[in-house]
Amino acid sequence: MTALPTYDDVVAAAARLEGHAHRTPVLRSATADARWGAQFFFKCENFQRMGAFKFRGAFNALSRFDAAQRQAGAIAFSSGNHAQAVALSARLLGMPALILMPQDAPAAKLAATRGYGAEVVLYDRFTEDREALTKRLAAERGMTLIPPYDHPDVLTGQGTAVKELIEETGPLDALYVCLGGGGLLSGSALSARALSPDCKVYGIEPEAGNDGQQSLRAGRIVHIETPRTIADGAQTQHLGEHTFAIIRRDVDDIRTVSDAQLVDAMRFFAERMKIVVEPTGGLAFAGACQDAATLPGARVGVIVSGGNVDLARYAALLAGE
Amino acid sequence: MTALPTYDDVVAAAARLEGHAHRTPVLRSATADARWGAQFFFKCENFQRMGAFKFRGAFNALSRFDAAQRQAGAIAFSSGNHAQAVALSARLLGMPALILMPQDAPAAKLAATRGYGAEVVLYDRFTEDREALTKRLAAERGMTLIPPYDHPDVLTGQGTAVKELIEETGPLDALYVCLGGGGLLSGSALSARALSPDCKVYGIEPEAGNDGQQSLRAGRIVHIETPRTIADGAQTQHLGEHTFAIIRRDVDDIRTVSDAQLVDAMRFFAERMKIVVEPTGGLAFAGACQDAATLPGARVGVIVSGGNVDLARYAALLAGE
Repeated sequence: MTALPTYDDVVAAAARLEGHAHRTPVLRSATADARWGAQFFFKCENFQRMGAFKFRGAFNALSRFDAAQRQAGAIAFSSGNHAQAVALSARLLGMPALILMPQDAPAAKLAATRGYGAEVVLYDRFTEDREALTKRLAAERGMTLIPPYDHPDVLTGQGTAVKELIEETGPLDALYVCLGGGGLLSGSALSARALSPDCKVYGIEPEAGNDGQQSLRAGRIVHIETPRTIADGAQTQHLGEHTFAIIRRDVDDIRTVSDAQLVDAMRFFAERMKIVVEPTGGLAFAGACQDAATLPGARVGVIVSGGNVDLARYAALLAGE
Repeated sequence: MTALPTYDDVVAAAARLEGHAHRTPVLRSATADARWGAQFFFKCENFQRMGAFKFRGAFNALSRFDAAQRQAGAIAFSSGNHAQAVALSARLLGMPALILMPQDAPAAKLAATRGYGAEVVLYDRFTEDREALTKRLAAERGMTLIPPYDHPDVLTGQGTAVKELIEETGPLDALYVCLGGGGLLSGSALSARALSPDCKVYGIEPEAGNDGQQSLRAGRIVHIETPRTIADGAQTQHLGEHTFAIIRRDVDDIRTVSDAQLVDAMRFFAERMKIVVEPTGGLAFAGACQDAATLPGARVGVIVSGGNVDLARYAALLAGE
């Protein structure tokens, strides 16, 4: 592992993203403040380009490619937001992108990724080794692999969201961030430590997949089976080397919430704040609500990580099905 | 009818709303621009206090009360956003509010109106005369009636949304506004004429209730039966005296869209822009999309009027039920 990135790298990433990523709005909710007794500041990355914070990390990573790398392009494996983030970033930077997606990925996600101009290669996730296939294709075409979270440029790109948040709100007492592989959480922790040193930083995982919590307790990266949770963006099996090293140093605690709490959060966002949030995007707020009794009057940052959810599925979740 | 209000009254309303109403965000959508070939600027009043532009007009009207009026408070009849707008404005201004609502109004709307501290009086809309009842209660208690749209202070308050929009975007080529009783459309037209004189201003109605279109063609206020449409905020039977006089003078045309077009707009807002919009809030965008072939490259303002929709109903509409 190379040296860990620092907040200076987040600042450099923010300069690269200037004029390309949206500076997403920070929403307030008088209803949330009254109901839970804290002052919430919602950083709404569901309004980010392609609908999730993932654009920040992918664009930052791709924009650091040298001429030869740009010529050959980027390769990634993902069935989710990272695929679209790499595809869109590559198109904006004028380079090819190849995304490996499972054959049974939702048609809408395939279409969206192709819609951003990426070449999509399908694989059978039951019979094929995704990583081996990716490595072979990367070698054949000379493409640079961009992993979804365990990469310094990816995680420092993700950290720009909290940089923007705290620049807008001033110091916070607590910050809640969703946790899958740890790209967003580790980058957010770098920004929070630099801009609001006394701010408590919490990662929130689905309770069905608490590998991050286990890892923090054990002091080493714990691997788990793919967890069953509606938070599809947090169905990771383990943290990354870079992300764990930063999380272990800079994050105060990792806590979990249930899928039912995620649905409650999604419903609150729709009903009271008028925003569409994907299940993973509800993790941070669900975690903050759970802790609210310990946070009377506190200034609490909440990262709303994304809004990419199939409409039929979203409707079913809102309807309580 | 008193003299018609002017853009100066909108400016005065904006000063009264400063620090009370939200300056709502103007969202863009690269997908919408690419799909329909115009440049859309979405003024998102679904993020306004209580979830709709109606707060602007109600707060402006109530803030002009003299000491005796404040003491006695405000009275309104509404089963929708105007009820909540008057209730919240009264609470913020420290005066009583009484809202007449039909016995069969949705429980959520009753609860929300009471939640803002208003007294709610229920009536039977099949056997009782709402206007007579309101007048009697107003006289008994000395309360001032705030009508939902046909009032200079209400319509100039609503006009502050387009004032903010054009101040942020600069001149527009076309502006699309939903049309029920005409408070938002007439106020918007005042602002557009002053700030972007060459901008075409269009009102969009549900095709089931095109009384505004008929009125514009006939040169007089046409009354219709309560229309059957999912756009519950536009189920008005006729324009107002003040609103029609301004619309007739300052609005270029009134056009209609179907309920199916409204659902398409709501789905686009949810899927691509991650915002929850009520059926009435889809009118303007549905109208703009319908005209898009005639607007290549144009700068088009779209008012997203509100986001107050029962979650179960919203889920059913998204699911295509």
